[in-house]
Amino acid sequence: MTNDYIELINKKLDEFMPINYPHKIFKAMKYTVTLPGKRLRPVMCLETCKMFGGKVEDAIPTACAIEMLHAQTLIHDDLPCMDNDNYRRGQLTNHMVFGEANAVLAGDALLTFAPQTILKNSKQLGAEKLLKLMEEFFHAAGAFGVIAGQVVDIESERLNINDCKTENEDFEFYAQTLDYIHTHKTADLFKLALRSGAIIADANDEQLNAITEFGQNLGVAFQIADDILDETSTFEEMGKTLGKDKEEGKLTYVSLYGLEKAKKDLNDLIDKCFNILDENNLKSEIFEKILKKIKAV
Amino acid sequence: MTNDYIELINKKLDEFMPINYPHKIFKAMKYTVTLPGKRLRPVMCLETCKMFGGKVEDAIPTACAIEMLHAQTLIHDDLPCMDNDNYRRGQLTNHMVFGEANAVLAGDALLTFAPQTILKNSKQLGAEKLLKLMEEFFHAAGAFGVIAGQVVDIESERLNINDCKTENEDFEFYAQTLDYIHTHKTADLFKLALRSGAIIADANDEQLNAITEFGQNLGVAFQIADDILDETSTFEEMGKTLGKDKEEGKLTYVSLYGLEKAKKDLNDLIDKCFNILDENNLKSEIFEKILKKIKAV
Repeated sequence: MTNDYIELINKKLDEFMPINYPHKIFKAMKYTVTLPGKRLRPVMCLETCKMFGGKVEDAIPTACAIEMLHAQTLIHDDLPCMDNDNYRRGQLTNHMVFGEANAVLAGDALLTFAPQTILKNSKQLGAEKLLKLMEEFFHAAGAFGVIAGQVVDIESERLNINDCKTENEDFEFYAQTLDYIHTHKTADLFKLALRSGAIIADANDEQLNAITEFGQNLGVAFQIADDILDETSTFEEMGKTLGKDKEEGKLTYVSLYGLEKAKKDLNDLIDKCFNILDENNLKSEIFEKILKKIKAV
Repeated sequence: MTNDYIELINKKLDEFMPINYPHKIFKAMKYTVTLPGKRLRPVMCLETCKMFGGKVEDAIPTACAIEMLHAQTLIHDDLPCMDNDNYRRGQLTNHMVFGEANAVLAGDALLTFAPQTILKNSKQLGAEKLLKLMEEFFHAAGAFGVIAGQVVDIESERLNINDCKTENEDFEFYAQTLDYIHTHKTADLFKLALRSGAIIADANDEQLNAITEFGQNLGVAFQIADDILDETSTFEEMGKTLGKDKEEGKLTYVSLYGLEKAKKDLNDLIDKCFNILDENNLKSEIFEKILKKIKAV
């Protein structure tokens, strides 16, 4: 079922992104968008639409646009002036293949190509709903969303976790900073995927609130799981350079709270997600599968 | 009259861009947007709206959004991996003040903050018109617009003008490349400003076509004038490092055609612009002033 979605999304991403002139920029855009991946965000967008009684095909352009936005954040986060990563999902990062200037421009181009893809291929949704989707997209993509998370993440690099933990006040500051980063860098895109799917399916306000809370908890859980994997996995398993976090004294859930508490909090968040589904009579094998997989980390 | 517009735009840009948390990113965004400037694009947007019988105040958020987009292109073009410029309008460039990572993110943030500004502050235009404005914005801002121009501009840096001019075929290639760069890097934003103003004023298709042709000619003229100034001005007059083009054997209108032909072609393009206004019974002191000023270069 998840695999059907992934196949559909991959097919549609390919269709939505023909290589126009100037070829180099369209190739650079497509390169990172189509790197093999779990397509978690678009899958969640399609599944939420279905869960609230909408047509899956109505959500496809939006789901793909959210994957394009996700790729944009990866391309720019990997740049030498940011995280300076050479590998992503086991492949060379965008700037390693196309050069730094083209990687900056490919990210820029995706930021407008993504909403353009929604508008061009979702006319049947009507103008009012399209505008709502635009508002959701801009909020999550911009300085109130993922970019806020990335900015604070960069600032937090001056914090060395080894200097912390002595005073309570200090610890509180580290904890709040980490929560802010996880909320905006990760949960905001999850919430965008879920809320967009719900909006397309005409979900009511109560349903929108429920799915937003679900996305917040799932996003933070996902990020804690990522921090745990960074601590415990190998390059082959993750497809990116690992252990850098620890080496640099970087603020992560594991470095702040320790591995045991990280695992416990991850489990609690996943349980919360299950509860939200139950309380709102939302049934989805796909979400259950995603939750179980993250919990198993 | 132009000064009234500039004052209005500056006031509104300040209003539309409060410094939210995280302060650093909003400060970085606002820094380049509010650098002293002629506000040519937003002025043209407001004036076109008025010229076609629309209300100037209806076009203010869109005019400001186009200035934000313009600033985005400047911030990223100035980056070390692109043009590597330290000064812009006589001030330090964005990455020189806020660092490279924040400059990349400030540009990214403007790319969504700009259309967000339109949607948030132009509800009275109605959903259909807002969607049209979104489509215009995405087209001009993306890989079919300014980014196409910037990509080809970067590629053209491998061309050294001193290697050209011997064979006709070669010359044709250089000429087409330069025209492509000018059309997309400069004229596309001009056309966006003009077309958006016209759309807000409910201009018909014939009027839209006329103003698009006007924008194409004006944009190329403006770029030729810029190339001429780069050849003949001083740092104090232009507020940016000059003569770099010549030094690097860069492809410009002056380096390709020589100063005399550049001046003649600039005049011809400006005359064409005056003719388009005449033929379509479009009267505007502001556009006449702009055309005369560019012609006088």
